[in-house]
Amino acid sequence: MASSSFAAASHLLYPAALVGSSFAPRRGRPAAAVPAAVEGGREFDFKGYMVARAAAVNRALDAAVPVAYPERVHEAMRYSLLGGGKRVRPVLCLAACELVGGREPLALPPACAVEMIHTMSLIHDDLPCMDDDDLRRGQPTCHVVYGEPLAVLAGDALLALAFRHLADPSSYPSDDLHPPAPRLLRAVAELARCIGAEGLVAGQAVDLESTGLADPVSLDRLEYIHLHKTASLLEASVVLGAIVGGGSDDQVERLRRYARCIGLLFQVVDDILDVTKSSQELGKTAGKDLASDKSTYPKLLGLDKSRQFAEQLLCDAKDQIAAFDPAKAAPLLHLANYIAYRQK
Amino acid sequence: MASSSFAAASHLLYPAALVGSSFAPRRGRPAAAVPAAVEGGREFDFKGYMVARAAAVNRALDAAVPVAYPERVHEAMRYSLLGGGKRVRPVLCLAACELVGGREPLALPPACAVEMIHTMSLIHDDLPCMDDDDLRRGQPTCHVVYGEPLAVLAGDALLALAFRHLADPSSYPSDDLHPPAPRLLRAVAELARCIGAEGLVAGQAVDLESTGLADPVSLDRLEYIHLHKTASLLEASVVLGAIVGGGSDDQVERLRRYARCIGLLFQVVDDILDVTKSSQELGKTAGKDLASDKSTYPKLLGLDKSRQFAEQLLCDAKDQIAAFDPAKAAPLLHLANYIAYRQK
Repeated sequence: MASSSFAAASHLLYPAALVGSSFAPRRGRPAAAVPAAVEGGREFDFKGYMVARAAAVNRALDAAVPVAYPERVHEAMRYSLLGGGKRVRPVLCLAACELVGGREPLALPPACAVEMIHTMSLIHDDLPCMDDDDLRRGQPTCHVVYGEPLAVLAGDALLALAFRHLADPSSYPSDDLHPPAPRLLRAVAELARCIGAEGLVAGQAVDLESTGLADPVSLDRLEYIHLHKTASLLEASVVLGAIVGGGSDDQVERLRRYARCIGLLFQVVDDILDVTKSSQELGKTAGKDLASDKSTYPKLLGLDKSRQFAEQLLCDAKDQIAAFDPAKAAPLLHLANYIAYRQK
Repeated sequence: MASSSFAAASHLLYPAALVGSSFAPRRGRPAAAVPAAVEGGREFDFKGYMVARAAAVNRALDAAVPVAYPERVHEAMRYSLLGGGKRVRPVLCLAACELVGGREPLALPPACAVEMIHTMSLIHDDLPCMDDDDLRRGQPTCHVVYGEPLAVLAGDALLALAFRHLADPSSYPSDDLHPPAPRLLRAVAELARCIGAEGLVAGQAVDLESTGLADPVSLDRLEYIHLHKTASLLEASVVLGAIVGGGSDDQVERLRRYARCIGLLFQVVDDILDVTKSSQELGKTAGKDLASDKSTYPKLLGLDKSRQFAEQLLCDAKDQIAAFDPAKAAPLLHLANYIAYRQK
């Protein structure tokens, strides 16, 4: 297995010619189940959409974590939180809010909250006692710069700040735009469930106990790990956006299923990229899964079947948003494509 | 300094004859500022009160963290959460709820939440990269039993679970007893503030950077550390109880000040106990502050002035609850005494 090359990967990933732009529109083989109407907006400027939303999220994150006393822990939080990244989770949150008819500024605080949680999980994951990673997004990891104790604390503080930012009325632009308290409370409980021992932490824990075993883990277990370790937080992102946007229960559940599909897709693609890309291209250590005997889709299924599985997940995700207004669904549709066809 | 002995400490701590009971009523020198009416309830059975509330809290905590898949991380959470402790924070929460006229079961979910946060902070504090403590409440610490990675994750999971438990309507006994959503949301934001980079984490961060310095830290800085590292969570405990109990803003702020006094008191007494008690008596490593050159009140003020400071804080705390109905204030009054006069 893993007789991979960039050329072999290109039926799922972007053609090499388009690699220059992270948000280049998809030109490869179309995913079969997508109705033309939904694929629709050929005019939809996905790159412009992502760049504008990421900039808004970055401004909001910058404002949410001031440089305050004690400076070092705030600096460590800011270092990891503001150090780049595509802001896929926050943008999913904003897009889901708009899709159900909500106004986008309503979703900025939950969008920031999910990014804070994501950053916390990266900081703690990278610790020497966990994955022991020195490099993240091409930069030294938090504990390398600030030391382990402060990295643990910065992670804890980001976790707490996520809930504060989500729950505090002052995070929202005005009383008119403040989501009703019962919806915010539901968002708090959803976020907490998605990151706790039934969510993100469950995935990390099962991943931990599956590492270094003599036998490869089963596909079921691998799916459990990724549905919890990766999909949970994408689920929270989309579900929180839909909740604060005033979505119906049916809409929330549809979007939850969409998110679980693209969450698993995200990881399958990550596994594929790990064996098909260089460290320089990824901005993090490549081939690490292979070196560590960690189970991945390419190892269990082979590269071709992993790609087929990714295509299926992409179709399933798009099915969930097919019933929405195509114009409003365009961002989530393109985000699913982006996750499938990203280069890193 | 630290020419301490148990006899010397007994003007603040219990006389040796009473040490047998952790909740023995106070017999020592009375704290000057306490009106007889508030000291009142000579009949108040503090020991019985604490034992009954701790048992209720333990049952609720046991139910809040089921033995579920993935088992190891749930076991690690349960090991640290259910491994004993006086449940001072949860009982403060229950007592504050009743004091403002709320029904006690309303406060059980926030009471559990603050204990989860407390446990999380102990697990992360004890990690080798932090305080590197092997013993807690007389038992091996979480990372000693479950390993460092799972200890990091169990802490993260408890932090998330605290917010879920607080925000989720199903944590509360019935719709009749469910606190209104705006109050629960306010409780979420308060809890998050008290544990983040403006609360508990701030105290830990300043404590970290103050350790190992050539010069002793100033009294101001020591107070900052303890007001954040210790008092913050006691503040959250009392404030959450008052919020879900339906307290007025004035009542909440009074109780906040009470909590900050007993929080600082807690730490001053802790410092005193560290130099006056044995490891066996404390159930944790004694004399550690002295050995580590960590700044403490006895080191900066001497033992006598530390005791005077503790007495002053006790008086100030009692002043804050003097305006409440004495019978209803009895638990918080006795809790303040308990924190001042505890043996470990």
